[in-house]
Amino acid sequence: MENGKRKIMIDCDPGHDDAIAILLAGANPHVELVAITTVAGNAEVEKTTLNALKVCELAGLTHVPVAKGAGQPLIRKRQTAADIHGESGMDGPLLPNPSKAMEEEHAVDLLIRKLMESDGDITLVPVAPLTNIALAMRKEPAILSKIQEIVIMGGGTFGNTTPAAEFNIYVDAEAAKVVFESGVPITMMGLDLTHQAIVTDEIHQRILDVDNRVSHFVHELLGFFAHTYKEVFGFAGAPIHDACCVAYCIDPTAFGTKKLRVDIETKGEHTYGMTVVDLLGVTGREPNVNVAFTLDQDKFWAMLVQTLKNYT
Amino acid sequence: MENGKRKIMIDCDPGHDDAIAILLAGANPHVELVAITTVAGNAEVEKTTLNALKVCELAGLTHVPVAKGAGQPLIRKRQTAADIHGESGMDGPLLPNPSKAMEEEHAVDLLIRKLMESDGDITLVPVAPLTNIALAMRKEPAILSKIQEIVIMGGGTFGNTTPAAEFNIYVDAEAAKVVFESGVPITMMGLDLTHQAIVTDEIHQRILDVDNRVSHFVHELLGFFAHTYKEVFGFAGAPIHDACCVAYCIDPTAFGTKKLRVDIETKGEHTYGMTVVDLLGVTGREPNVNVAFTLDQDKFWAMLVQTLKNYT
Amino acid sequence: MENGKRKIMIDCDPGHDDAIAILLAGANPHVELVAITTVAGNAEVEKTTLNALKVCELAGLTHVPVAKGAGQPLIRKRQTAADIHGESGMDGPLLPNPSKAMEEEHAVDLLIRKLMESDGDITLVPVAPLTNIALAMRKEPAILSKIQEIVIMGGGTFGNTTPAAEFNIYVDAEAAKVVFESGVPITMMGLDLTHQAIVTDEIHQRILDVDNRVSHFVHELLGFFAHTYKEVFGFAGAPIHDACCVAYCIDPTAFGTKKLRVDIETKGEHTYGMTVVDLLGVTGREPNVNVAFTLDQDKFWAMLVQTLKNYT
Amino acid sequence: MENGKRKIMIDCDPGHDDAIAILLAGANPHVELVAITTVAGNAEVEKTTLNALKVCELAGLTHVPVAKGAGQPLIRKRQTAADIHGESGMDGPLLPNPSKAMEEEHAVDLLIRKLMESDGDITLVPVAPLTNIALAMRKEPAILSKIQEIVIMGGGTFGNTTPAAEFNIYVDAEAAKVVFESGVPITMMGLDLTHQAIVTDEIHQRILDVDNRVSHFVHELLGFFAHTYKEVFGFAGAPIHDACCVAYCIDPTAFGTKKLRVDIETKGEHTYGMTVVDLLGVTGREPNVNVAFTLDQDKFWAMLVQTLKNYT
Repeated sequence: MENGKRKIMIDCDPGHDDAIAILLAGANPHVELVAITTVAGNAEVEKTTLNALKVCELAGLTHVPVAKGAGQPLIRKRQTAADIHGESGMDGPLLPNPSKAMEEEHAVDLLIRKLMESDGDITLVPVAPLTNIALAMRKEPAILSKIQEIVIMGGGTFGNTTPAAEFNIYVDAEAAKVVFESGVPITMMGLDLTHQAIVTDEIHQRILDVDNRVSHFVHELLGFFAHTYKEVFGFAGAPIHDACCVAYCIDPTAFGTKKLRVDIETKGEHTYGMTVVDLLGVTGREPNVNVAFTLDQDKFWAMLVQTLKNYT
Repeated sequence: MENGKRKIMIDCDPGHDDAIAILLAGANPHVELVAITTVAGNAEVEKTTLNALKVCELAGLTHVPVAKGAGQPLIRKRQTAADIHGESGMDGPLLPNPSKAMEEEHAVDLLIRKLMESDGDITLVPVAPLTNIALAMRKEPAILSKIQEIVIMGGGTFGNTTPAAEFNIYVDAEAAKVVFESGVPITMMGLDLTHQAIVTDEIHQRILDVDNRVSHFVHELLGFFAHTYKEVFGFAGAPIHDACCVAYCIDPTAFGTKKLRVDIETKGEHTYGMTVVDLLGVTGREPNVNVAFTLDQDKFWAMLVQTLKNYT
Repeated sequence: MENGKRKIMIDCDPGHDDAIAILLAGANPHVELVAITTVAGNAEVEKTTLNALKVCELAGLTHVPVAKGAGQPLIRKRQTAADIHGESGMDGPLLPNPSKAMEEEHAVDLLIRKLMESDGDITLVPVAPLTNIALAMRKEPAILSKIQEIVIMGGGTFGNTTPAAEFNIYVDAEAAKVVFESGVPITMMGLDLTHQAIVTDEIHQRILDVDNRVSHFVHELLGFFAHTYKEVFGFAGAPIHDACCVAYCIDPTAFGTKKLRVDIETKGEHTYGMTVVDLLGVTGREPNVNVAFTLDQDKFWAMLVQTLKNYT
Repeated sequence: MENGKRKIMIDCDPGHDDAIAILLAGANPHVELVAITTVAGNAEVEKTTLNALKVCELAGLTHVPVAKGAGQPLIRKRQTAADIHGESGMDGPLLPNPSKAMEEEHAVDLLIRKLMESDGDITLVPVAPLTNIALAMRKEPAILSKIQEIVIMGGGTFGNTTPAAEFNIYVDAEAAKVVFESGVPITMMGLDLTHQAIVTDEIHQRILDVDNRVSHFVHELLGFFAHTYKEVFGFAGAPIHDACCVAYCIDPTAFGTKKLRVDIETKGEHTYGMTVVDLLGVTGREPNVNVAFTLDQDKFWAMLVQTLKNYT
């Protein structure tokens, strides 16, 4: 951490909540956004990369490199989430085509290079299927000791894609298995936590009140996203899952967590992609994941609203 | 239901909480205990059968037939729970050897016969691994339309034997799969519910105050059982899981339930024996189980204490 | 063995080759057919039971009890083989409705009773899915030490229903797992062996030449069966799988076997129901199955033709 | 193919038979060895890379780039084969440390670059776990249409590491699944074929008679390798598995093959890593692999002996 800033690299598949995660990282004084890498998830990787570039351009993050990564899960066939994020992966607001271009370097190579060049002070923030992270770990195992922490959006004690599995883990459970068994410190923002980060009407209004070009964009994002969450899940508002990870990097005291054993199920008939959380400690195995369960609503929303004001 | 009494057959593996379930059924005016069948589970079937006979003798339930069933799960190797229930399966109180003998008829045949002779008005109350019930369903499929309801102690959205699986389902998940896919109406008292049925010091005192031979026995049971729950799980008291099923038959209004899709996982590496509950309805499949989530503590404990007073 | 006769009980799902197995057992002086039990497999259990009764009546085996067993596999949904055996399970020859009735006793109970009453000198000959045998083993474990041997038609180092699994094992792999892990001596007539027992034109003619009512029936069976084997598998004739097991009981010297470790796969995505044969001994585990690989064609066909002549 | 030479890249884990594969490719006029990539398999990747460099130096293949690849399977924990190949991965002959150095480029990147620069005329010859190939396919899917063919040593209708699985596939079945489902033309030299390529005493003598520095090295390799195959499997000589793939590239007419459907099992309890070959065509699915079953011994050994003579 230099100048009090925590260095992070966001691996994402924008994605409405991914966009908000990037915006939160882009203007908050407590984190430094070292790079953005993209992966197939909410949409195909070509689309998620374009969306990431658009968000960076809107937010003036032209100095942040954006590198395209894996277009398909490690082993399984690709599955996207057009029902939740629309055809573009970020339906709703219309942003102009960006002048900013993606890196020539592959996301996996960029992740490896940045980590190997670092002093071990970079935190990975994957808010998408873990394909890029697993590929990087397998291509260059030396990165394992260079990663400060991995703050993942994924999993939980219940699922949203199947009864047992959350989307990001379900899409590439084999990659998740690689990451969760890597020995690197992991904090997991699963659905238990992120379903508390729901943009209510009151929060939506506070965001609107910021009244700048970025907050207007977030307003439009939330409009579309809240609509699909209402249609598909009957939720009253949209949970901004991915932003929770960045928020945790900014201020971990806004989150209540427990260190628990978490294993990834890759064989089950009804449970493929489940993060099996040992709540009662019955396995007797060493905890490997810091699982987030409670959110300090006041701190969290103040952090988001305050950061959005930094865009001018 | 004759004379306002709901007919039930308890399939059990006593077991401390099994004993309390039998005692609750044995003296409550709203249920008629048609038969008791036993199975391997908390201990070997020879032990659980002996325990059932002892409890019946203590309680004066000499008219209730007790039939011994399967000594081993459908497919898997047997696994017992001596860590929780002691070597005898019901350690703590010492009861004399019973004069009452078990039936010559096998539990599976008794279940089939009673059901086939009935008017379709018998509820099965399995509070143990589901081996006997599955064997009966496979030996005589005609019983399926004769079972009024199955009120199961088992499963939940988390586990106590593995992180994902509760003991009764874990011990014989294949049997559970047969039962849960049978099409018979099922109510499931899983750990979400039964971990609310914890005998606190105050409840323990109320039971003591009943002050008859049965309540003294229950007191001793609770002493041992609370101790192992404290040792193994760090609980403040013992959850009397199995009694919840009988209580539900007596007064379903003491329980809040939701009709949900539940599947049994039999293939998973970390999730064998999990009852996969579709909390958000993401499968779009027809609900097959009435899952209990909330307990009216006042009603529940009053029912138990009041029933114990009926023993004189 | 009394009077030089080996006592056998055939558990079957007739089925063309099942019928030939019964006929071989019914008139050969070296075996005594103690009972026939039926199960769902090639067709529904009602049909396979009717077919067994018809064959017994045709062959004058009115003294052999026929008991109906399980109508569905232990765990899985039922799957039949109408593509191979026709709608009736034994299409082709038309036999009159039998006057012989099936036993009132369930097949599982008959198996248990006969074994428990025996001196441990009965061989089980299951030539169908192993549901009845597994149910009997689980209902009454004491039979395990009473079974002399189990001579199974099923499995092999390749499959005919999937690339890895043979029909009888595939239909109820969980039952097969119970049987193969029971510790009882097992001889397995898998596809490696039974695909050598193909009725060529020359054999077919020798059967025709027997020229009695039973051989005429066998002729008609073979006509239909050879046709479906040609259509579905491109075989030049029909393999009379099930008859191999009875032939082995009559004269084991007609078969070359190896004692090997065999495990049943119940979890695989592409291998459910495979009999995993440890050909090279790489597991280092104790062999549990006597696997048949070679057939003495001369002995085998002479045995069949000679036995058919005993029907007058 | 330029000048009648088929371009190949060998991905290997030397490994005794890997070494012979390299030597066969290095001096045969019908193939051009474009590059060698290494992977963990028979031994750790550091060792297999060193062994590949030593073999190249011995053989004068200093112009062939050697690039180090993955040190661990895609998902699973690493497993090596010291029982077969010794501690160094190529025990037996002692070669000096090579002056030749490996490339700085990662094997995965070299594979991708060479393929993308090519006219689609390079054949991949993986004779090791398929980790590098799968990683390359996932990192750069555009290579799929650039690969002429993949000639794999692995799999078969039986196993040598488990009863169902051959070593190369077993070590990284997930990688194999990626490759076998890639749509690229595949020829598979499985154990059915390679167990025919056994160096008998007569063949060994023919190799000795070549009497040059390379044939002396091969002689020493075979000494060690034959010994372990005798100890572990009871074989009379060593099967030079990997050389079969190069031989196939040199002269496919020495091999009898069938186009069949092959799937990779990744879920099975007893069958993980099995290549499930649909011998009877029961799946009705499109064949995806050209499976080798028969070897023309005369052509094969003549090819090897003749090629060894080219080293001077």
